[in-house]
Amino acid sequence: MKYYFGIDIGGTEIKFGFFDETKRLIDTFKILTPTENIREELVNSIFLKVKERLEKEKLTLDSLYGIGLTIPGPVNSAGIIIFCANLNVGYDFDIVTAIKEKFNKPTLKVVVGNDANLAAYGEYKILARSNLSNLVFITLGTGVGGGVIVNKKLVTGFTGSAGEIGHMPYDLNNNRKCGCGGIGCVETIAGTAGMIQTANDLMKKEKSIMKDKTLTPKVIFDSAKEGDLVALKVVDSVSQAIGYMAATIATIVDPEVFIIGGGVAQAGQFLLSKINYHYQQVARFETTKARFELAKLGNDAGFYGAFYLLLED
Amino acid sequence: MKYYFGIDIGGTEIKFGFFDETKRLIDTFKILTPTENIREELVNSIFLKVKERLEKEKLTLDSLYGIGLTIPGPVNSAGIIIFCANLNVGYDFDIVTAIKEKFNKPTLKVVVGNDANLAAYGEYKILARSNLSNLVFITLGTGVGGGVIVNKKLVTGFTGSAGEIGHMPYDLNNNRKCGCGGIGCVETIAGTAGMIQTANDLMKKEKSIMKDKTLTPKVIFDSAKEGDLVALKVVDSVSQAIGYMAATIATIVDPEVFIIGGGVAQAGQFLLSKINYHYQQVARFETTKARFELAKLGNDAGFYGAFYLLLED
Repeated sequence: MKYYFGIDIGGTEIKFGFFDETKRLIDTFKILTPTENIREELVNSIFLKVKERLEKEKLTLDSLYGIGLTIPGPVNSAGIIIFCANLNVGYDFDIVTAIKEKFNKPTLKVVVGNDANLAAYGEYKILARSNLSNLVFITLGTGVGGGVIVNKKLVTGFTGSAGEIGHMPYDLNNNRKCGCGGIGCVETIAGTAGMIQTANDLMKKEKSIMKDKTLTPKVIFDSAKEGDLVALKVVDSVSQAIGYMAATIATIVDPEVFIIGGGVAQAGQFLLSKINYHYQQVARFETTKARFELAKLGNDAGFYGAFYLLLED
Repeated sequence: MKYYFGIDIGGTEIKFGFFDETKRLIDTFKILTPTENIREELVNSIFLKVKERLEKEKLTLDSLYGIGLTIPGPVNSAGIIIFCANLNVGYDFDIVTAIKEKFNKPTLKVVVGNDANLAAYGEYKILARSNLSNLVFITLGTGVGGGVIVNKKLVTGFTGSAGEIGHMPYDLNNNRKCGCGGIGCVETIAGTAGMIQTANDLMKKEKSIMKDKTLTPKVIFDSAKEGDLVALKVVDSVSQAIGYMAATIATIVDPEVFIIGGGVAQAGQFLLSKINYHYQQVARFETTKARFELAKLGNDAGFYGAFYLLLED
């Protein structure tokens, strides 16, 4: 039997998915992301954890056929992490070669990709509808990210920036500076910081049950569900931005399904129906037929995608 | 030797490209698009012209292996023309089956696609850089259209609307109604009618050498090159819309090259450099590395793309 690991490297923790060749998820576990000597310690801790987990099954590195990795930032077409704001590994880190050398196994297959891209691929593979060719995954959390599946393949792009849909220009006049350096990206409205800013701006003039609360997306969505007008306006601005973004995406790649994931997606059908409403206002031609669905894999999507990427040619 | 036809069906004329299996373009010619009994006459005239051209080479239908067609509208994934505003063939026209039946040759390969999509594919194939995987073609003419190549494959999408980039929402407050039914599409600014509207609006308040001329994109671009301020503002609004559109596309599929084609692209480097200027203002991350190039094939791109689509699996 051949064994594989899908490993989702985040800024805070590293999640492991341990799979066999039948695509069965044997186990999942996580460790904290190292905070010092990150390049070296990242590779070391992955090596030790993988070896330890194999030994628990009385397996050696001989049975290990592949390691798929996700990175919280763009990865170029050669698998190099040019720079990663959320993982302090410096410039031009060739993590694939570093892992291969550590395991000292030239036949080991090692692949790497962007976390949101691979979460998209994981969701796509788990949906497992064989005739589904085009899907876009939208992750709503601290930031707004995503991944694009076209003709059944993950799209990574020329510079590894495919699926950076949260940085689509949206309201160039809102003067909100985005983490990416741009102004008026979708994320400045629909990311966590953007939502809180909108709520605070509105509460300067309007009453709200959120007035003395520490604002989080959950507080905002819960308040909206209770009918708070400020919260409802925030949710509407988020849904409008995401609906517009999805309609824009549809004019380019025309997906069959949009999958909504990330922490904010816990707002569920309430959010989905509002996004779909705004999507229908702007969507062109037959792209109104696209469907919105909630993600299935939660925080496991990344390592699933990394694993399935390993199984590609 | 095997022979093929790439056939670009437009609202006014039908262009034929006659190819052999070595990918050599043997001949090109055109006829007028029928205006009555269009379904039947379209199939008839294609049949007669193809047969006639083969006979001129002393060839029979036995040597004919494939016919690739372009349509000036969306084609769904089953090859059906659901509706085409620019070609009055009614609803749900299965042109592939109609052509096959007319030629009475079950082994004949017939494929069909959207004209701008296939022009994109033609340009991509003729660029012939084997390591080029991701390209977006932008056609500027009466309308603004395009095609998307991702992972070396043409993207057509779930409903055949992929590459309808001119209908990306751009300025939802401009109140300009688009031919697609939407408001504020890129095309309402960067299409021919949009350009003329912008020029007329400006000339109500400002002097211009275009005052008594019949406005066309050529008149506008020529006047801009002569330094006319109104014309320069129009060109700037067009370039800004296209630059914004390209930067948006880059956050989704991150292409290496944008190819600019269509009649308006005859403005050449003058237009390209302005588009690139605006692109650089809005492009995120490493997508600033994408290049803008002028199309090479002119009006032949469509039939080239239809021919190359035939050679795909």
